[in-house]
Amino acid sequence: MPALDPDLTARLKRTPDGLVCAVVQQHDTLEVLMVGWMDDEALRRTLAEGRVTYWSRSRREYWRKGDTSGNVQWLKGLRLDCDGDALLVSVEQTGPACHTGTRSCFDGREVTA
Amino acid sequence: MPALDPDLTARLKRTPDGLVCAVVQQHDTLEVLMVGWMDDEALRRTLAEGRVTYWSRSRREYWRKGDTSGNVQWLKGLRLDCDGDALLVSVEQTGPACHTGTRSCFDGREVTA
Repeated sequence: MPALDPDLTARLKRTPDGLVCAVVQQHDTLEVLMVGWMDDEALRRTLAEGRVTYWSRSRREYWRKGDTSGNVQWLKGLRLDCDGDALLVSVEQTGPACHTGTRSCFDGREVTA
Repeated sequence: MPALDPDLTARLKRTPDGLVCAVVQQHDTLEVLMVGWMDDEALRRTLAEGRVTYWSRSRREYWRKGDTSGNVQWLKGLRLDCDGDALLVSVEQTGPACHTGTRSCFDGREVTA
């Protein structure tokens, strides 16, 4: 499998545990569906396979979205921000993105002052 | 100034350096403008003032968006995701969100496989 582009690797600015946050947006409606975490290998798999793979901070393992739930994320585009610490992942989301069953992980979770 | 709601504090799941990522979205167009980082105090200030404040990982200080650039972010809404490690901040963005002058920090920064 192809390695990650060294220019891209050099641009990533990681958290102390080696991760970049990945903001996932439905490509047509522009809903923000979820935020996941990627290390270099998760990013490499995502670009190579066209399906989105994350690193789970709680389970300490890779997970490819949809392998358990069926709610696959097909990669439509990927952008890295100006300072290299966040990815914007454009996807076609099958079914709900959230493990609780809501479309987005932010649905109905308003915080007030 | 009011303290942060203890229920909210308890729900936050922080990076090893005590931060939660904040995804910033223009409230009407739904563009993702940037990703910043908040600790509890930055979140408290954001909710109390109605203007978005971050913690700068590189400068090790708080910064309220627009104080230097004039490109203020007015808070329109704030949601915390299902597992408490990401905020979705809905804003009215004045001018460009990116310090490089682009509207979004992701504009023109496509990554390809």
